[in-house]
Amino acid sequence: MEVDELVCLPRLTRVAVCGGTHGNELSGVYLMEEKEKEEEEEEEEEDPLSVMMVLSNPRAVQQCRRYVDTDLNRCFTHATLNGPRSGDDPYEIIRSRELNAFLGPKGSSGAVDLVCDLHNTTANMGLCFIAYSDCDWICMHIFRHLQRKMPDIPMRYIHFEVSSKESYSLDSVGKHGFAMEIGPQPHGVVRSNIYTAMKAGVQYMLDWVCFFNSGTIFEGEYVDVFTMIKHIDYPRDRETHNITAAIHPQLQDRDFCLLHPEDPLFQTFSGETLRYKGKEPLYPFFINECAYYEKGIALSLARKRRVMIPAIRVQTEQEQLANVKGFASEEEE
Amino acid sequence: MEVDELVCLPRLTRVAVCGGTHGNELSGVYLMEEKEKEEEEEEEEEDPLSVMMVLSNPRAVQQCRRYVDTDLNRCFTHATLNGPRSGDDPYEIIRSRELNAFLGPKGSSGAVDLVCDLHNTTANMGLCFIAYSDCDWICMHIFRHLQRKMPDIPMRYIHFEVSSKESYSLDSVGKHGFAMEIGPQPHGVVRSNIYTAMKAGVQYMLDWVCFFNSGTIFEGEYVDVFTMIKHIDYPRDRETHNITAAIHPQLQDRDFCLLHPEDPLFQTFSGETLRYKGKEPLYPFFINECAYYEKGIALSLARKRRVMIPAIRVQTEQEQLANVKGFASEEEE
Repeated sequence: MEVDELVCLPRLTRVAVCGGTHGNELSGVYLMEEKEKEEEEEEEEEDPLSVMMVLSNPRAVQQCRRYVDTDLNRCFTHATLNGPRSGDDPYEIIRSRELNAFLGPKGSSGAVDLVCDLHNTTANMGLCFIAYSDCDWICMHIFRHLQRKMPDIPMRYIHFEVSSKESYSLDSVGKHGFAMEIGPQPHGVVRSNIYTAMKAGVQYMLDWVCFFNSGTIFEGEYVDVFTMIKHIDYPRDRETHNITAAIHPQLQDRDFCLLHPEDPLFQTFSGETLRYKGKEPLYPFFINECAYYEKGIALSLARKRRVMIPAIRVQTEQEQLANVKGFASEEEE
Repeated sequence: MEVDELVCLPRLTRVAVCGGTHGNELSGVYLMEEKEKEEEEEEEEEDPLSVMMVLSNPRAVQQCRRYVDTDLNRCFTHATLNGPRSGDDPYEIIRSRELNAFLGPKGSSGAVDLVCDLHNTTANMGLCFIAYSDCDWICMHIFRHLQRKMPDIPMRYIHFEVSSKESYSLDSVGKHGFAMEIGPQPHGVVRSNIYTAMKAGVQYMLDWVCFFNSGTIFEGEYVDVFTMIKHIDYPRDRETHNITAAIHPQLQDRDFCLLHPEDPLFQTFSGETLRYKGKEPLYPFFINECAYYEKGIALSLARKRRVMIPAIRVQTEQEQLANVKGFASEEEE
């Protein structure tokens, strides 16, 4: 890629902000409620940008649980969305198809342009973008915008290398999409500072979309991308499968601090230190996330690299028209 | 009370340490598991002190939830324990009666001498003793012992002024009893530092009981007692009853820091600050405890006062015998 390359991308006309995909991650739940109130109070005006506020899993929200039957945010694979239907499908499977019909269909030209799905973590991760792409210039420019606008909030871009077909989370339904993950916050609790950061993050994202749509050129620059390499489970009892150790106190809360071979990893319940036996220093994240005990993840490890993102601007109407025609003729092939 | 008074109290021969009364408060759950393992590994030896390790709510532990049907730690009132039984009693009601049969019966001479019930909170409370009495010299001397032995852990003694009949928690089943509450820790998560503090606290408590039983005299001294005065609920929407504000960032995590009239209390989801309208400065605690959203408690407030506790020692066998006789003749009356 040339450094002075300018990439022209289609206008973003439909944006979805989703909260309560996990019913006990409360910042997004209360932000959806607040936004709904604000909308009721605002005068009806013709807005060129359509922003949908979506409470993704109302039943789980009502019970203040992550999910009712199964984790909604693992239901958006091609296979699950398009699998056979039956009368006793779990609630979240049914709900994922509703959301896909409303915001997607995933992978189609009818899908919303951008999905921002709001999450909390018990890990000390600050504000993270989690995306399936390290070359989605829209998401990455939004990320840089938030980084500049919110200098007091530690902010990282995490990349899960998963194909579009295999991608499983709600944000994969949009043409562009990312999860906005903020912590630390216990599930079932709302902390004002975390709520305020999320509210600001969402507002800056929507601002950016408006700037973009109105023709602003965003200069090329570098983004540090943390690509997930592997998960590490807790040590467990062979028979009961119960965990036998907790995250080591020297690792707890040190998300994104480089973990070196032989650094303390776990402390067993009898007091013994277990060390990191990997050969490569990697960046830990999702350290001691509550919801991942059942998934067998004590922490995840990432490799960091610097990615150059090109300058971008919105396509002119002419460019967009030419593009749509090109797209149409491609589809005809 | 004379400062040089020496109070002689009966030997403590049976002690119960309970964990998992709330199934998602994991320090106690894993401590029970660890203690069980230790016991299996230890040689059988005749111990004059009988220590029972009790997993209070195994079903809730299994599901990693606070409770299955109803909060077990509100089921130990005289009325609930002795109410009529029916085939469709909630699980925790049934379990409370089992525990009462095993450790009590509450209020009887057959009850265990001491119950220490282990809890976690999402509030930044350090290690707290929570008890129904401000003149239970056993509990208060144990508290002072832990304070001295664990100088790095902030430690407070909280007093809930509730009659023995109305007292509702598991620790009320013993002749002496207290909850050991440690935070901050998200429910469903185990943090190594919190686990280690709890493990040490339990060990120092058991050490103290052994010292006491073997005749050590514990000098009289002062204890700061925080007596609960009132609870404050979140501001709520009149129709939905949903909360409309979170704990103010300036109050969050400042448990046991004196709250003055007009200090910030809540921040609404639209950004407004709501202030403390009480007339008396009081000490806040259980600030933003996860499990209390459903109970309508955003924080509790306490008055602090200094209580002189007398010197104590165990009764000699002769004294104890005289006492039992006295007790027996009282019962005969």
